[in-house]
Amino acid sequence: MRVAVTAPATSANLGPGFDAFGICLERPFDTVVAKTTEGEGVTLEISGVGSESIPSDPRRNTAGRAALAVMRMSGFRGGVAICLKKGVRPGSGLGSSAASAAASAVAVARLAGGLPVEKIVEAAAEGESASAGEEHADNVAASIMGGFTIVRSVHPASVIRIWPPRFLRLVLALPDLYVSTFEARKILPRRVPLASMVGNVAKASTMVAAMMKGDLALLGSAMEDSVVEPLRAKLIKGYGDVKRAALASGASGVTVSGSGPAVLAVVDAKRASPSKVAAAMASAFGENGVGCETIISKVGRGAAIKAR
Amino acid sequence: MRVAVTAPATSANLGPGFDAFGICLERPFDTVVAKTTEGEGVTLEISGVGSESIPSDPRRNTAGRAALAVMRMSGFRGGVAICLKKGVRPGSGLGSSAASAAASAVAVARLAGGLPVEKIVEAAAEGESASAGEEHADNVAASIMGGFTIVRSVHPASVIRIWPPRFLRLVLALPDLYVSTFEARKILPRRVPLASMVGNVAKASTMVAAMMKGDLALLGSAMEDSVVEPLRAKLIKGYGDVKRAALASGASGVTVSGSGPAVLAVVDAKRASPSKVAAAMASAFGENGVGCETIISKVGRGAAIKAR
Repeated sequence: MRVAVTAPATSANLGPGFDAFGICLERPFDTVVAKTTEGEGVTLEISGVGSESIPSDPRRNTAGRAALAVMRMSGFRGGVAICLKKGVRPGSGLGSSAASAAASAVAVARLAGGLPVEKIVEAAAEGESASAGEEHADNVAASIMGGFTIVRSVHPASVIRIWPPRFLRLVLALPDLYVSTFEARKILPRRVPLASMVGNVAKASTMVAAMMKGDLALLGSAMEDSVVEPLRAKLIKGYGDVKRAALASGASGVTVSGSGPAVLAVVDAKRASPSKVAAAMASAFGENGVGCETIISKVGRGAAIKAR
Repeated sequence: MRVAVTAPATSANLGPGFDAFGICLERPFDTVVAKTTEGEGVTLEISGVGSESIPSDPRRNTAGRAALAVMRMSGFRGGVAICLKKGVRPGSGLGSSAASAAASAVAVARLAGGLPVEKIVEAAAEGESASAGEEHADNVAASIMGGFTIVRSVHPASVIRIWPPRFLRLVLALPDLYVSTFEARKILPRRVPLASMVGNVAKASTMVAAMMKGDLALLGSAMEDSVVEPLRAKLIKGYGDVKRAALASGASGVTVSGSGPAVLAVVDAKRASPSKVAAAMASAFGENGVGCETIISKVGRGAAIKAR
């Protein structure tokens, strides 16, 4: 049996929703082709963008570890051969490791005869520990389920999905900078002022209400975070200029995408031009001597089974 | 000129939304009758439930201070005589001081020719500092605007209002215990673990999504807080038993109302009996030797101008 699955890039956190919020892009995406084999365990072949930087030992790779978690959860006996084609650049802040884990978990769950979606999210979150050092589900939930997701818990996985308004566009600027997810987590404080918690609860809640009301101006205005964003922004040369440029060219809100260095702008396509925002962000990075690629995407629908 | 305004009791926090969330009851309510006078400043007369415990100096009273804030913000010249009739018991955790401030701010704003609603909220929040020692708007926003409210900021006041589903019932158990708002704030930690912030952001966001989707089981399941509720629960004799009894009799979720001692249960009237939940809560307090009054209310529509 053979199955091909794509799982898209995602942007986690969205400001105040650190470790809880994720939003799914339409592209880029990772592709996993998985086959049952005669043997046991998982074999892994990797190709595509940045594949040379990714460990191919299944236990040290998010796709391999997610596959093993699905096999354990489903009681699957036998072997699985995985071909992972990377489309999402590793270390970009776009959930590259999560896209691999998500595609692999969905594919292997299909080979195993199916698993509830929250079990698949849980397995993919376990896969994520191969790259982040700890399990987290904010990217994998969005990559698997699509839309905007709130992760309530990882064990057991509990995820709320919301479909944002159709006119929401995600503009991502990916600078030629390297930020390690591990380092980006290490700089985080262990404790935060109670007032910061109150502020982030209020802003994150406002974002959810805004998304459901279709009010992207409100959404963007609440996409501010005083806890994580300022620390991670320091790792991104030119961040302040890029944020100002995006807002000045019509973005509703701007924040660090995941652990960076990608910068996320949300744009109301009825009121502003996503390509103008993208150009302004690229130009601001350029003025800081930083090369940059941009992506404009609608909100994606999540992982998709392409063929058997 | 003369105006009469009612402003209802409210329940703040709702678990993870500490200092941000509020929900409006239909009753009980405070009533303010305000008149313009020949003199200057504010005079205050107080009657009704617990009025003997409330300072009648306008600067030390939430209604008086809210009136003075409205007069300052609106540039109102002249005097105002306020008759405050308390319907909400002070120190109950039902936003008693907020109901007074809200009724007063709405009434005096009408005398002054009108103010934008968020200015009225800001003035009422300033009034709140007379009792809580600091300005907070979670109760006054809900009492003035009705529905379920998220306070994004107090200065300037920024509030998101959501109308919860019609089948939501609020059941409040008011035990014969005294909890000082001031003391209930003093026991709070100054800093909280980052993981607690992440958890509360996820749960609060889930509550907003649940309220907008009309999913009260989801709402109730997310109404948990690991930061404030456990500390305040200790000040309420029998809290654990009351919470268990309410959940066992069909409540979707239970938490401390504001700074307590009132306990809030949210009930889906399509699936459970609010009066059964109220009886179970009263009985559990009774088994702990604590007398208790109960209130069953729909979600209220906020302050209302009754007559000129």
